[in-house]
Amino acid sequence: MNVTVHGRPQPYRTVTFDRARNSVLLIEQRLLPHEFKIVATKNFRETADAIRDMVVRGAGAIGATAAYGLAQGALAFQGGDLKKFSRHVETVYQTLAKARPTAVDPVNAMNDVRREMARGETVAEQQSLALAAAEEFANEDARHCEEIGRHGAKLIRNGMKILTHCNAGWLAFVDIGTATAPMYAAQAQGKKFHVYCDETRPRSQGATLTAWELAQQKVSHQIIADNAAGHLMQRGEIDLVIVGSDRTLGRTGEVTNKIGTYPKAVLAARHKIPFYVAIPLSTIDWHLKRGFDIPIEERHGSEVLGAWGVTEAGRREYIRVANPTSRARNPGFDVTPAELITGIITPAGIFKPNELWPRRHDLGFQN
Amino acid sequence: MNVTVHGRPQPYRTVTFDRARNSVLLIEQRLLPHEFKIVATKNFRETADAIRDMVVRGAGAIGATAAYGLAQGALAFQGGDLKKFSRHVETVYQTLAKARPTAVDPVNAMNDVRREMARGETVAEQQSLALAAAEEFANEDARHCEEIGRHGAKLIRNGMKILTHCNAGWLAFVDIGTATAPMYAAQAQGKKFHVYCDETRPRSQGATLTAWELAQQKVSHQIIADNAAGHLMQRGEIDLVIVGSDRTLGRTGEVTNKIGTYPKAVLAARHKIPFYVAIPLSTIDWHLKRGFDIPIEERHGSEVLGAWGVTEAGRREYIRVANPTSRARNPGFDVTPAELITGIITPAGIFKPNELWPRRHDLGFQN
Repeated sequence: MNVTVHGRPQPYRTVTFDRARNSVLLIEQRLLPHEFKIVATKNFRETADAIRDMVVRGAGAIGATAAYGLAQGALAFQGGDLKKFSRHVETVYQTLAKARPTAVDPVNAMNDVRREMARGETVAEQQSLALAAAEEFANEDARHCEEIGRHGAKLIRNGMKILTHCNAGWLAFVDIGTATAPMYAAQAQGKKFHVYCDETRPRSQGATLTAWELAQQKVSHQIIADNAAGHLMQRGEIDLVIVGSDRTLGRTGEVTNKIGTYPKAVLAARHKIPFYVAIPLSTIDWHLKRGFDIPIEERHGSEVLGAWGVTEAGRREYIRVANPTSRARNPGFDVTPAELITGIITPAGIFKPNELWPRRHDLGFQN
Repeated sequence: MNVTVHGRPQPYRTVTFDRARNSVLLIEQRLLPHEFKIVATKNFRETADAIRDMVVRGAGAIGATAAYGLAQGALAFQGGDLKKFSRHVETVYQTLAKARPTAVDPVNAMNDVRREMARGETVAEQQSLALAAAEEFANEDARHCEEIGRHGAKLIRNGMKILTHCNAGWLAFVDIGTATAPMYAAQAQGKKFHVYCDETRPRSQGATLTAWELAQQKVSHQIIADNAAGHLMQRGEIDLVIVGSDRTLGRTGEVTNKIGTYPKAVLAARHKIPFYVAIPLSTIDWHLKRGFDIPIEERHGSEVLGAWGVTEAGRREYIRVANPTSRARNPGFDVTPAELITGIITPAGIFKPNELWPRRHDLGFQN
């Protein structure tokens, strides 16, 4: 997608690879929306650090970063001894896998790369296959988002007002994003619409990342407090809701997403507003039998008790907003039941939540 | 209620009067929760400034402040000329009325005081009646809140988890508050319970004022993001919701309150959790025929785009959180329909929303 740098819009991906410098290039997401900066990692250890320290975040984006990181590590190996090379690659793999131990995307992505590498018979062949596989992983991630956009754009009509929550935009993937993909595709088709970005407390990804993306793409949008969606729906000012998902249960159609998604789904159902979830197939969990069993991460209270931002003097600061002697509860996600979801937008088409399981063999289910 | 100063809990009212110095004493609410300070206004003009600049806010609290301010102005008059005195009092009245032109409470309170004053035949008599009437207004405000607490405490059982939104606490009134009154009364009865304070973005009155109050009263509580209530209800962790109201329609039982109240009512109804609204009778609007006609104030976007708080270095700062090139929509209130409200807690008892109109003559309706 485009980023305007020195007044000129230029295309950027969240994650790319610089072959000449053997370096992974990342948009430094922790500085957004206040500063745009590209970070180039010097070696696979720095790439692992970037994943761990959340320079890059989001399912597709960290998957591609790990895939490139594995190739980067492989390419740095000098010599022709395949055994030593394999041991080295194992170290690279473990280092990158440990960067975000609960995330599945880096491991899945690196497994793809290793499978491809195994076809090579020399170190040089395996090195070159590794990079090709990482490139293919990144391209496929972007292609899948493009497909989500193609299917989802049909839901967007001229003049619509669309609500989204958190950031399931291109910053969370290699490009395009999931919840935002239908918007970018509809925009390319010349449709006019307006997006309400939920602020998405406590980490404000809507106000920071999604709003930044939409501003870069020149999509008409406004940020609203998470409290405001109900009122806007009551007054007929929201026509469509599109969100992303961290984990969707293939058996039940239940959707785990950022805290605050479930209330928006309940409100949308009450007001008969279509509620869609846009996901890549990799986030479907075919095993878990009920959403109640999804562990909900309890995050640090400081997120709720204050906020990060920029002072008038331009300093980045954390401020304490809340009463100093009070504490917080901070569940990070919630689970939206299938009955509240109009449809699930995937690269393979749009499905009702209860169609996922019967269609599982088309949707990548592997027993 | 109590405020702990230098380690010792002491009783304070939000608004009191110092006869010796002819001064209105106010808790400086703009410094809370980070600093506790009492402001003493030197004359009625400073009292009007305090209302306008929101040193004091909340229906009951600004009503009492205006009542005391009128008495303060009257008491400052020197001499015995009743005509001159009346002209002076009119100036005082107009000055205080203009401080918050859309609020009805200051005007209603001052009308009470003027009605009482009219019984006096000399300047001295009228001055003394003014102060007595202002004191009576403040005492009645506190008494009404106490009655709300007495009725509402019956709803609170041992071990309950209670959700509240925004600040309808004692800081918004002379003492005790409305939504908090049942909690303080139940606590005095020895009941144990836990309160979840909605942060209440964008102005965070829950995280700042309500949490501060509850901490001062040693009521067990945690602050949550406005997004979190849905998840907690799903997991059975909320048993009761009590909120306040800025305007309740006597004819329909619809409730206007801080933005974000309606979504909580929708969620509570879905989870069959009792949803109560605690109000003084003065906030019932007996005229308006439907909630849709209530004008919803659109507030400044900066509230949504950033936050006020205290930096690590102890400075009070506004920080910009959101993308610098994005704008916000910021409706200040929403309207909750009667069907979602279990009951309305008033000083005269607890009523179903559709009982207000049939019982209007007991509830202060004047045609």
